[in-house]
Amino acid sequence: MLIVMESQTSQEKIQKVIEFIKLKGFDAHVSNGENHTLIGCVGRKVIDKRDIELLSGVKEVIRISSPYKLVSRVFQPDDTVIEVNGVKFGGEHVGMIAGPCSVETLEQVDETAKQLSEAGVKILRGGAFKPRTSPYAFQGLGEEGLKILRQVADKYNMAVTSEIMEVGHIPMFLKYVDILQVGARNMQNFNLLKKLGEINKPVLLKRGLSATIEEWLMSAEYIMAGGNREVILCERGIRTFEHITRNTLDISAIPVVQKMSHLPVIVDPSHATGLRDKVAPMSKAALAAGANGLIIEVHNNPDCALCDGAQSLNPEEFSYLYKDLQALVGVLKKQF
Amino acid sequence: MLIVMESQTSQEKIQKVIEFIKLKGFDAHVSNGENHTLIGCVGRKVIDKRDIELLSGVKEVIRISSPYKLVSRVFQPDDTVIEVNGVKFGGEHVGMIAGPCSVETLEQVDETAKQLSEAGVKILRGGAFKPRTSPYAFQGLGEEGLKILRQVADKYNMAVTSEIMEVGHIPMFLKYVDILQVGARNMQNFNLLKKLGEINKPVLLKRGLSATIEEWLMSAEYIMAGGNREVILCERGIRTFEHITRNTLDISAIPVVQKMSHLPVIVDPSHATGLRDKVAPMSKAALAAGANGLIIEVHNNPDCALCDGAQSLNPEEFSYLYKDLQALVGVLKKQF
Amino acid sequence: MLIVMESQTSQEKIQKVIEFIKLKGFDAHVSNGENHTLIGCVGRKVIDKRDIELLSGVKEVIRISSPYKLVSRVFQPDDTVIEVNGVKFGGEHVGMIAGPCSVETLEQVDETAKQLSEAGVKILRGGAFKPRTSPYAFQGLGEEGLKILRQVADKYNMAVTSEIMEVGHIPMFLKYVDILQVGARNMQNFNLLKKLGEINKPVLLKRGLSATIEEWLMSAEYIMAGGNREVILCERGIRTFEHITRNTLDISAIPVVQKMSHLPVIVDPSHATGLRDKVAPMSKAALAAGANGLIIEVHNNPDCALCDGAQSLNPEEFSYLYKDLQALVGVLKKQF
Amino acid sequence: MLIVMESQTSQEKIQKVIEFIKLKGFDAHVSNGENHTLIGCVGRKVIDKRDIELLSGVKEVIRISSPYKLVSRVFQPDDTVIEVNGVKFGGEHVGMIAGPCSVETLEQVDETAKQLSEAGVKILRGGAFKPRTSPYAFQGLGEEGLKILRQVADKYNMAVTSEIMEVGHIPMFLKYVDILQVGARNMQNFNLLKKLGEINKPVLLKRGLSATIEEWLMSAEYIMAGGNREVILCERGIRTFEHITRNTLDISAIPVVQKMSHLPVIVDPSHATGLRDKVAPMSKAALAAGANGLIIEVHNNPDCALCDGAQSLNPEEFSYLYKDLQALVGVLKKQF
Repeated sequence: MLIVMESQTSQEKIQKVIEFIKLKGFDAHVSNGENHTLIGCVGRKVIDKRDIELLSGVKEVIRISSPYKLVSRVFQPDDTVIEVNGVKFGGEHVGMIAGPCSVETLEQVDETAKQLSEAGVKILRGGAFKPRTSPYAFQGLGEEGLKILRQVADKYNMAVTSEIMEVGHIPMFLKYVDILQVGARNMQNFNLLKKLGEINKPVLLKRGLSATIEEWLMSAEYIMAGGNREVILCERGIRTFEHITRNTLDISAIPVVQKMSHLPVIVDPSHATGLRDKVAPMSKAALAAGANGLIIEVHNNPDCALCDGAQSLNPEEFSYLYKDLQALVGVLKKQF
Repeated sequence: MLIVMESQTSQEKIQKVIEFIKLKGFDAHVSNGENHTLIGCVGRKVIDKRDIELLSGVKEVIRISSPYKLVSRVFQPDDTVIEVNGVKFGGEHVGMIAGPCSVETLEQVDETAKQLSEAGVKILRGGAFKPRTSPYAFQGLGEEGLKILRQVADKYNMAVTSEIMEVGHIPMFLKYVDILQVGARNMQNFNLLKKLGEINKPVLLKRGLSATIEEWLMSAEYIMAGGNREVILCERGIRTFEHITRNTLDISAIPVVQKMSHLPVIVDPSHATGLRDKVAPMSKAALAAGANGLIIEVHNNPDCALCDGAQSLNPEEFSYLYKDLQALVGVLKKQF
Repeated sequence: MLIVMESQTSQEKIQKVIEFIKLKGFDAHVSNGENHTLIGCVGRKVIDKRDIELLSGVKEVIRISSPYKLVSRVFQPDDTVIEVNGVKFGGEHVGMIAGPCSVETLEQVDETAKQLSEAGVKILRGGAFKPRTSPYAFQGLGEEGLKILRQVADKYNMAVTSEIMEVGHIPMFLKYVDILQVGARNMQNFNLLKKLGEINKPVLLKRGLSATIEEWLMSAEYIMAGGNREVILCERGIRTFEHITRNTLDISAIPVVQKMSHLPVIVDPSHATGLRDKVAPMSKAALAAGANGLIIEVHNNPDCALCDGAQSLNPEEFSYLYKDLQALVGVLKKQF
Repeated sequence: MLIVMESQTSQEKIQKVIEFIKLKGFDAHVSNGENHTLIGCVGRKVIDKRDIELLSGVKEVIRISSPYKLVSRVFQPDDTVIEVNGVKFGGEHVGMIAGPCSVETLEQVDETAKQLSEAGVKILRGGAFKPRTSPYAFQGLGEEGLKILRQVADKYNMAVTSEIMEVGHIPMFLKYVDILQVGARNMQNFNLLKKLGEINKPVLLKRGLSATIEEWLMSAEYIMAGGNREVILCERGIRTFEHITRNTLDISAIPVVQKMSHLPVIVDPSHATGLRDKVAPMSKAALAAGANGLIIEVHNNPDCALCDGAQSLNPEEFSYLYKDLQALVGVLKKQF
């Protein structure tokens, strides 16, 4: 951390700042510039830089070391590649996850999974516990939904990912699910993240609605700090002033994250736009930008979906898109 | 719900839309305008309007009834007034809550509470479970913190509010705390909200970092739908592109909420700005805008606070501000 | 326009609303629903819907007809294709524009243009009048810069685009420039837009920093309303809370605009990210999302650029990228 | 400027950075910390810090000196007080400006001004050239509007402020207007700002829709750099994701600006919210937060206003509010 003093600050004020940071457990290194005195703070303590900024004579405080460690490229220069059911996420590998927004019935999931499986998809998504804005909307089938997912996935040799919303549900999820998904609204549910750090299955961590990339990586750090090294990041759109699309897909987050972190980052074009006819162009854009995978909503009968049918493809539309994506991936020198 | 068809849509397309909404359980009322055919949808079902917007020939779908019921002025025209330890929030009453960001030691809380109590404050705030962005930052004392708060509050005849982060902690909080606070990051932790709907104590619901006012009211609806009618809303700043302040206090949210809902709305000027010297002007602005109360961070020794000292007042500064606010409230024809 | 009355509104209030809209020059068509009375407003006048929303008993006012006409697909269903120097923007055609941020010297522009021309680029960009945040930063060479651009472009058989900032400069620009560019900061400089509606050359209209897609189209409408039908829209990133990238490229704006309007839309990956190493992935993403072209900053010596060198490619990097893009465009069934 | 090198950077890379900044005209001061080598850059040149950040081994570049000079408290510690027609803005003085959004007719302006004058207002606002989103909306009366404003203002001994949109209009405005207003959409119309720096009348500079506070101050710097020291800043709401209000009034910008700059800052509650019934609470909040004045839309017959009637008060409502504000200002130890 580096403290920049205002120009022409008195020696007395500089001294007070030095005393303050020593009190907080840091060493101080003073250097006098032409206009500004700089004070370097060295130490391993955590301090809120605003505390120093409020001291008299201080112009600015600059944090130098990154707040995250385990997720950074400094800690691990090479790409993390996570493999689930033969599908790889990371490096040159692009993984595909698809399935309905919500689990509604065995028939619905079976029919959707059958067609996805035929199209080559090996990881099935589906929500059993649904975070809905309205208390009066369909809230998901709960454990029954997880059972359906497992049963169908086993039938078609698929793996399963589903969203977990509560610490108490972890043991239940471990019984049925291969990748535990943390939704945007729970990206900073720190108690949940800590506990997911202690499990042995991959976690798919969605970016919060208005989370900065740094906060998102800090949430991944929570999971990794617990010992779980398998985190797949998922960009799913951020909230901006533009309201035609449900959210704004932050496409540049992909290369930004990949420069800062070794973790794979995938894209959810369905939630990012909220509009079915935008899923194909956004899927292509995501791969072209270097995404390590996609998670796409597919429903056997979108018009009758209990949740987010408007952003779901039907299996045929998906199958058609998937072929386009495979051609695209070839040109990009990546592989599904 | 009202469906606006595109101009010159064929009868066939109009018919398909009518069939679709009937299939979904609604009645259809068609009205032909000069340029557009309108189809009114009547029924009690929940439907995603995007599902209809994707049908051929549909220009726009307009939701007419509000998604929230119990929190609205239609349901209850008169202001809800919530009383805790003799302090009233709502109507012409302005309530004050103050205390440290985090509970650190018995001495710290005791010294702070003593001075707040002398200044006239009757509700003490303090964090025992802290949602911190970094896994390496101070995470709070846990239950030990709640015990300290209770012990000190009893000594000075104060009530206590503290933030709850997990469903499993509700019984513990009910033992020690008078108002259960839901933080910005948990505003859409729907499982937690549902369970808080079943308790008999007031809930202080902070607005999420990027939550719209409507989403915030929907989260209050979750609590009220469970039977708990005592919800205090708290505006604490939203995330924008401006980075000098930690967040942007959405001051106009106060009269907007008060027009839409009967629930009291208070302001947290400490988190809204993140800067100690902005707490006084923002507190005054909040009351002038009509806020039903304030929650302010006060620490007996802000420079040594383990969390957010930069935005905490010391008890003297608070006491001075409180007197200013009392004068202000008189002119505004309100009362503490 | 459609007026939704609150449930259980008195006949008297409904009557007052009807009188008000008649006074404003509209016809009123009343229709009584189960819960709400609806009043359809028919007429050609412009009215601010908030004026009606403030009337007693009014719940909501819904605008039905689009505010823009000439730019919409309703007015012209087929894609507009704009051709400049043999390069086509629109439909299946993808156009490329490249060149330095600022014109600095004849040598700089000549060297850059020579290499771009060899790589196949036929439209040269370069700023002569620069909108700089600081009055102390390099402001551009002015007319001298335009002369340099023209001279160099003629030498290599290229067309020229450059940014215009002031109505009074139009005659000067018409002498030197083939496409007149309106920058993000002038997207709502309506006087400028009106005058650009009267010229016979294409206008490249950048999206404002925080402009909605609808506002952007309205600015294009200003130009088209004056008679100029050749408008190329350019997405260049919007302002959000994320600060690692200079702006957030709104990639989904591409298919959204293409559905609403017949005008071509291109992408500026250099300004959208502000980071050289993000230009390649964002260029690919833009084309994959369906963009009708790109405008890329290239400088013969980025490290010595007087402006935005950090986001400029050198000619070799550009040439390498251009080849990648040509391969990509083939898979996407488009053509440069 | 301070360059932070990555930990364990080679001497060779450090040397290359030093050479680069020397080439750019800066002196380099190297200091070796425990983890990081720091390089201080000293010089008066302007450089884009991203240029340095792209060099190999550089972790971060930190700008130390403020980009603005004349507007800062360092340049002038004491508040600037600007007086127009006996009304003072700045320091303990609070100024009031009121009038219609648009000049429509002589009668309208006369009737409004008469009542405002009786209420004690001494500065009349009114738009003659209107920046309208739609080319089909009322665009203002032009010079005729300015003449009406002048004529009416003279009759009631008032000063006049009106919005200027084009460099070419400056001589015309100087004939009729006492304060030249720059609208939000022109906050970065740098050519206009430069020319306004050369006039001898105060400029009222509105904050851009998505302008940071620093950018806003930089635009004021443009005016001051030309020699004009009389700039009144005006906060009028910023664009966020919240859409119930037209914009989000950034109330904390007031104390933030007042700490950074000596210039007076006033608030426009009418445009900030876009809703008539929010003007009173936001006016009070603005003064309570320390604003140096207000600019409020008042129309003699808001229901018939050609522009923004929805956010205009009628003269009676204004008069009532003005009395409330006078009582409030007394408690705040300020004076109209």
